Amino acid sequence: MNLIDETAEIAEDVELGPFAVIGAGVIIGAGTRIGAHVVIHAGTVLGAGCEIQDGAVLGKSPTLARSSTAPSAPLAPLSIADRAVVCCGAIVFAGARLGDGVIVGDQTYVRERAEIGAITVIGRGSTVDNDVRIGARAKIQTDVYVTAYSVVEDDVFVGPGVCMTNDSTMSRHDSSYALRGPTLRRACRVGGGVVLTPGVDVGEEAFVAAGAVVTKDVPARTVVMGVPARAVRKVGDKDLLDRWR
Amino acid sequence: MNLIDETAEIAEDVELGPFAVIGAGVIIGAGTRIGAHVVIHAGTVLGAGCEIQDGAVLGKSPTLARSSTAPSAPLAPLSIADRAVVCCGAIVFAGARLGDGVIVGDQTYVRERAEIGAITVIGRGSTVDNDVRIGARAKIQTDVYVTAYSVVEDDVFVGPGVCMTNDSTMSRHDSSYALRGPTLRRACRVGGGVVLTPGVDVGEEAFVAAGAVVTKDVPARTVVMGVPARAVRKVGDKDLLDRWR
Amino acid sequence: MNLIDETAEIAEDVELGPFAVIGAGVIIGAGTRIGAHVVIHAGTVLGAGCEIQDGAVLGKSPTLARSSTAPSAPLAPLSIADRAVVCCGAIVFAGARLGDGVIVGDQTYVRERAEIGAITVIGRGSTVDNDVRIGARAKIQTDVYVTAYSVVEDDVFVGPGVCMTNDSTMSRHDSSYALRGPTLRRACRVGGGVVLTPGVDVGEEAFVAAGAVVTKDVPARTVVMGVPARAVRKVGDKDLLDRWR
Repeated sequence: MNLIDETAEIAEDVELGPFAVIGAGVIIGAGTRIGAHVVIHAGTVLGAGCEIQDGAVLGKSPTLARSSTAPSAPLAPLSIADRAVVCCGAIVFAGARLGDGVIVGDQTYVRERAEIGAITVIGRGSTVDNDVRIGARAKIQTDVYVTAYSVVEDDVFVGPGVCMTNDSTMSRHDSSYALRGPTLRRACRVGGGVVLTPGVDVGEEAFVAAGAVVTKDVPARTVVMGVPARAVRKVGDKDLLDRWR
Repeated sequence: MNLIDETAEIAEDVELGPFAVIGAGVIIGAGTRIGAHVVIHAGTVLGAGCEIQDGAVLGKSPTLARSSTAPSAPLAPLSIADRAVVCCGAIVFAGARLGDGVIVGDQTYVRERAEIGAITVIGRGSTVDNDVRIGARAKIQTDVYVTAYSVVEDDVFVGPGVCMTNDSTMSRHDSSYALRGPTLRRACRVGGGVVLTPGVDVGEEAFVAAGAVVTKDVPARTVVMGVPARAVRKVGDKDLLDRWR
Repeated sequence: MNLIDETAEIAEDVELGPFAVIGAGVIIGAGTRIGAHVVIHAGTVLGAGCEIQDGAVLGKSPTLARSSTAPSAPLAPLSIADRAVVCCGAIVFAGARLGDGVIVGDQTYVRERAEIGAITVIGRGSTVDNDVRIGARAKIQTDVYVTAYSVVEDDVFVGPGVCMTNDSTMSRHDSSYALRGPTLRRACRVGGGVVLTPGVDVGEEAFVAAGAVVTKDVPARTVVMGVPARAVRKVGDKDLLDRWR
């Protein structure tokens, strides 16, 4: 009921769901559970105590468009640390790294060379594009688009439907042009449906209200709102992260 | 070519697609069709004349983040009434209830304790989060995010890409804080790309124009637009639901 | 490990992944690769040198809501030209046509009678609804919603999270009412998170800034921004497509 390559190294107590496909050289740690119809491509390394749910695809390689500027060098294997969970129908690429206890939600998508820190949650249906770095304990909600080359620091909250962009020219540039995703600094909060333009920097403990369009940097501890987003006040002491964790 | 638990109760004329997985105690009514690679988790109850398309996953349990405030009590089985359709790649959780003739679109997502009334359609790729109540004959379009604890009454229209939010603190609150999703009253219409802030109430037969950000309650029969949304006129008699159904 | 209908015509060198399901009369050209858990419904025609990745579903028929106004006439088979790629978990309907070298991204969705021109890329998670026409070399980014009856001409760029709408009445109309999607003219660019209202025309080489809500036609070579979108300047000679391709 499974198709397991003979070179895969699977700990004895791993639970393997029906119709799973495990490729060459895959390593799966103790106590990990693999659901039905999961596909794990060659070389993927999975820690102990992980859960990979029905229909997830791990370790696939990117399909780059002819015009893509994403690097095409060979990728390291996908590496998933202990206790991570990849939910139903999610896709995580070769070259990505998921930290301890990360949750990748259902139908979610994580590309090559993305790094996601411990305990961070990526919500249902969200995209973490290539070469993104996300810190620890971040909360990325549902249907978020984290564009390539973005940086999301520790303890950031990103509301549902947030859309990040990284190319002010919309594809009218030469090969020397560097795509620039937003940088979301430690413990900032970005509300639902917010649009972030290329390269904006959202400061530590800043607060971007739902529906804003952020077109320039947001200073630390500043509340911004509107289209384009404007500063309206400071984040109060009682709303800082240390008060609530 | 299937994996069917011996305790499942499957009506004689059910069509079962290849590589389907049916768990313990699942009940499937007469005339229901199950596609390829479908996974139905233990205990799920499916009515008669339903259609469950390729790759759908029914009855999975939630994976709650350590910091999640969603209740973690044991869930009732997923219950799907007669003539409901769950399209390709959709995921519907244990504890949800789908009414008669509901359509859950392709790649769509419905969480635990969500209740969806008869004939309602949830569009492709949309999310219905935990503890949402949706009435009958509602039309939820493509890529909508219905956040936890929202209420959507009968005959509501929600345009594509609408994003609802339920936490004004963005995760800076204690356990006594109640998440509040929007309430969309009977026969209101919410346009494409609209953002709804936590707890707003959109009145009966109200009309929210595409792209608006709704930050306060919308009175019944009122047309609002803009960021933030402001009232611009009343909905005319000729545009009320009774004229068109 | 596969289920292949005996009437399917599959070229000798086709690679077929495990647990794939190939329906009656399917034709697959030379050198095409089919991943694990792929489902290809009856009648689908695939060219040479294509790649269909894990879990993709090809050639499914639509499930129309009782109230849907989409035509329900019998569909032509899904036709996929040489060198096209359909990525993991994508769904492409019967009646659609994909041109030479098209890439349909992971978890993406293309409906009946959609036509997509050569070399065009449809990004991860995007929707191309029924009866859409997309030209050649277009770049549709991540999580875009291209609504039914839209027209996207050659060389158009559509940023992530763009939401198009086609029904100003939000379902309060009779059967004589024609849904009108936007028309995006040759080489225009539409930024991330933009909302387009029904029937708007975005001119050749126009530029719509991220986060705008477009409520009326955009003249050729015009830069617009804001809510509602207003013209702010012309696109300079150095930013026209011919300079960059």
